[in-house]
Amino acid sequence: MHFADRLSEAVRRKGNATLVGIDPRPENLPRTLKEKLSGKPGEIGEAFTRFGMNVVDVVAPLVPAVKFQAAFYEAFGLEGIEAFYSSMVYAREKGLIVLFDGKRNDIGSTAEAYAEAYLETPAEGAAEGTRWDADALTINPYLGTDGVKPFVDVAAKHGKGLFVLVRTSNPSARDFQDLVADGKPIYRHVAEKLRDWAEPQRGTSGYSLLGAVVGATYPAELAELREALPGVIFLVPGYGSQGGKAADVAAAFDENGMGAIVNNSRGVTFAYERPEYAQRFQGNWQACIEQAVRDMNDDLAAHTNAGRLRA
Amino acid sequence: MHFADRLSEAVRRKGNATLVGIDPRPENLPRTLKEKLSGKPGEIGEAFTRFGMNVVDVVAPLVPAVKFQAAFYEAFGLEGIEAFYSSMVYAREKGLIVLFDGKRNDIGSTAEAYAEAYLETPAEGAAEGTRWDADALTINPYLGTDGVKPFVDVAAKHGKGLFVLVRTSNPSARDFQDLVADGKPIYRHVAEKLRDWAEPQRGTSGYSLLGAVVGATYPAELAELREALPGVIFLVPGYGSQGGKAADVAAAFDENGMGAIVNNSRGVTFAYERPEYAQRFQGNWQACIEQAVRDMNDDLAAHTNAGRLRA
Repeated sequence: MHFADRLSEAVRRKGNATLVGIDPRPENLPRTLKEKLSGKPGEIGEAFTRFGMNVVDVVAPLVPAVKFQAAFYEAFGLEGIEAFYSSMVYAREKGLIVLFDGKRNDIGSTAEAYAEAYLETPAEGAAEGTRWDADALTINPYLGTDGVKPFVDVAAKHGKGLFVLVRTSNPSARDFQDLVADGKPIYRHVAEKLRDWAEPQRGTSGYSLLGAVVGATYPAELAELREALPGVIFLVPGYGSQGGKAADVAAAFDENGMGAIVNNSRGVTFAYERPEYAQRFQGNWQACIEQAVRDMNDDLAAHTNAGRLRA
Repeated sequence: MHFADRLSEAVRRKGNATLVGIDPRPENLPRTLKEKLSGKPGEIGEAFTRFGMNVVDVVAPLVPAVKFQAAFYEAFGLEGIEAFYSSMVYAREKGLIVLFDGKRNDIGSTAEAYAEAYLETPAEGAAEGTRWDADALTINPYLGTDGVKPFVDVAAKHGKGLFVLVRTSNPSARDFQDLVADGKPIYRHVAEKLRDWAEPQRGTSGYSLLGAVVGATYPAELAELREALPGVIFLVPGYGSQGGKAADVAAAFDENGMGAIVNNSRGVTFAYERPEYAQRFQGNWQACIEQAVRDMNDDLAAHTNAGRLRA
């Protein structure tokens, strides 16, 4: 089934467009997991696996999708990567759409190898752990069309999706993305190429397997890009910890509350560090996460078209 | 010791600036390794490890550095990544400078996590395989300064290096990198930021820990960038299989034959597929690789300032 159709269906079924980002760091783990870390090999991998599974248990009934940040797993070498793989498989088994946030990029057969690594569905009877089989991957467009096309081909073949960095949420996104060439900022040039790549890849939902990463910290750009990219699902980072509010992301949605997923990582998965949740739920870190997800869903429903998903 | 000083010293000692790229693919493995692949779990990982070690055995006495392409290892999941790690450790043990070609990119603490993953030297007594400890990493600059700075901080702390994509060697590098803003193409804007990032990070060789990836397929840009970036080591892809010739890369070197490393991946490591080597050395695939390296060294010595390294 087409990626955008699967994602749209999941968004409709769950009644929200919240994407929970799982970015584990040893220092932010809940106390019960953190206190078991004594520096022995394998402990961090085990703690990350347990954390990922526990987060998935809480959020799977509530949201359509999760996003794993590759860097935090890769930072712990082989044990980190094994924990990543196990957590991802678990999330998929629990019915979540799984995004691999790796911002991969390269050209030709190298780009194809990345796409196969993370998006290919393994053949029947293939060994466990040889392909990641994620539902979507984030990619960086700096290399141009032949750095994107191989990802698209593999994604299309396996019913998977891609989210291309267009306008990121960090302050120095301005350095290159906002430079003006031929009367338009570079991110608009990227958006126009993206429209060309995305157009032939639309599903029955009207949305393409090619999505765009567009930060919530620049609401004006978000509105402008929403208009420029009608068939493209936006992955919107920056809500919550990076300062974006529901009103800032409202422009990402279409009139039916579709066409966008809004990510929150630390604000949800480390909710137990926030006084308002910690005090209310005491040591129950999973209850803190659950409440943070519900609060985010309510916030988006109240201030954006995502509210229409609840009708 | 500073990365650029270590690399410069290795280039001088070996008398050449050749970078051997290791990009294993099952279909290109030498027959003796390929014929053992029957589809069972672990076989590809084992074949990749053996291939990587055998290539390293051949090239370690001949060249200063090797570059591993992450995508081809990641394409085979956990067993591929384990093979990658083992091959990298082996290359380092054999005295080679090791580049991790992963084109990573992200912002803030996420970028820092990637940098730690691949560049941090593990603490004394740390578990095997928790950090990669590569000598240098390739990174993508699309996110701007706060997508680069965290990599620089970690690299500086551990005596490691970075190669920032500036002007890549693929045809559609033109899509975004060549767009003109304020009278200059985007890759020149990237180069100018790179100069600012690189300047405070120079070693005693005069070169910075921050290098640039500049393709050999556009010799004019190479010359222009060499002039614009005096303290920056160029990693030049595109020689050999991508059509670049020694004359095309000549502009990458400074007057002493320093300041550049020229990559060749398939042209060297799959030399046994090329008739001129296959016929001469029959089934001896390592002899083919050795001869291909020697031929490349001679070609660069004859047509570029790298020849001065032999004096």
